[in-house]
Amino acid sequence: MWLKTTAAAHVILAGAGPGDPELISIKAMKAIAWAEVILYDALVNTDLLTHAAPTCKLVFVGKRKGTHSHSQDEINQLLMFYASRYKRVLRLKGGDPFVFGRGHEESQYLTARGVTTEIIPGISSAIAGPAAVGIPVTRRGVSESFWVITGTLASGNLSTDLELAARSASTVVVLMGMDKLRKIITLFLKHRSPFEPVAVIQNATLPTQRIVTGSINTITAVTQRCGITAPAVIVIGKVVQYASLAEIINQEPLKMKVAV
Amino acid sequence: MWLKTTAAAHVILAGAGPGDPELISIKAMKAIAWAEVILYDALVNTDLLTHAAPTCKLVFVGKRKGTHSHSQDEINQLLMFYASRYKRVLRLKGGDPFVFGRGHEESQYLTARGVTTEIIPGISSAIAGPAAVGIPVTRRGVSESFWVITGTLASGNLSTDLELAARSASTVVVLMGMDKLRKIITLFLKHRSPFEPVAVIQNATLPTQRIVTGSINTITAVTQRCGITAPAVIVIGKVVQYASLAEIINQEPLKMKVAV
Repeated sequence: MWLKTTAAAHVILAGAGPGDPELISIKAMKAIAWAEVILYDALVNTDLLTHAAPTCKLVFVGKRKGTHSHSQDEINQLLMFYASRYKRVLRLKGGDPFVFGRGHEESQYLTARGVTTEIIPGISSAIAGPAAVGIPVTRRGVSESFWVITGTLASGNLSTDLELAARSASTVVVLMGMDKLRKIITLFLKHRSPFEPVAVIQNATLPTQRIVTGSINTITAVTQRCGITAPAVIVIGKVVQYASLAEIINQEPLKMKVAV
Repeated sequence: MWLKTTAAAHVILAGAGPGDPELISIKAMKAIAWAEVILYDALVNTDLLTHAAPTCKLVFVGKRKGTHSHSQDEINQLLMFYASRYKRVLRLKGGDPFVFGRGHEESQYLTARGVTTEIIPGISSAIAGPAAVGIPVTRRGVSESFWVITGTLASGNLSTDLELAARSASTVVVLMGMDKLRKIITLFLKHRSPFEPVAVIQNATLPTQRIVTGSINTITAVTQRCGITAPAVIVIGKVVQYASLAEIINQEPLKMKVAV
């Protein structure tokens, strides 16, 4: 499929933030009102779309595991389809478009076909997910770096970098990792204390948010018992001790306590 | 200093985003209008403060290296000072309050003294800085994780995790690292190709934004020649190849090219 573009076609790729509709940026909110067409993901809060112009076309292009949905090729082609027919196209993605969002692939696809693109970053659930339950990804003297990794590689395997992450003292944040939780935890067990705290936050920043905490030893069982499923953020590291007790739905006490 | 608090005192710790005043969240913008007092950092764009109520007290508590300014203890005490006299206090921080912002220390200090606190995350320059010049921190098949680290540890040393980061294939983003650029680069030279691309982005997302690119071999000299100084984000990894040519101020070509 090849489509001629009008000279003025412009596509904005914007992050919608982690879920709470007020955690979108002013700039991305303006882009919603500006757009003639919005192509949006499964993780975008649809409340945001009420701010679109009444004539704006809303196109759902979500990919959800296990259900038939648009492939990345189809999404790219749909973006071109609309960019060739409209001047103001918004691609709205959950979180940040450049954090595992394939936003760069989409931007590159469009640029190669003569369409100008622009990126509006978003608040990533990698940072806002933990923060929503009181967990800071960094804390002076406790964790002075954080590593954000996906559980779902193109190859289907765990990233080889995960072993280095496990060996570090870094806070490790895993996005899209629920299917691989047992594998990830097994790897961490080789390099960190079995009592190292772990949190899993489902639907972070939304009213349906649920968090469980445990240790490397227990988190897989806890998660299963409490029925925590994707979309969820996994956080491994000493900073998990700061999770707000009021938010935690299980009674699994954290065995590792670090002086504050 | 110990101050009695009124029962209703509430402190919001919010992220102001990376610099561009439109990259703040709707929620943080509402907090600006809500506040009776705003304590703000050096990296907060002061344009944002024009949205505060006319009666709002604006208190600068910035820390800038090499100049006398508030210590963290003083900031904590000032927060308590205002929390004991006003009901609606906003602590506004550059970027995200939990990414090297010491936001958690401040929140904990207040909570321990009976003040309720709330976190509003922000867009971190760790992600938005690279994105502002077209660099995605992740890209399928090129870099499937990113590691965010500070160049300025409490101890004054480089983080020991930086060695593990250098050994990984991860995109490494260093915040507050300009003083240690040479040391950081020397460490990476041990583990990555001398041609691995590096970008340094000063004042990301602001009109004064400047980016230089080079390789591990050349970036220290390039940065010095072009007079790039803090505040700046350092990005090391293959994704730097995607930096927008139009934005790069030096003519240093990237020697490493990776198929797209």
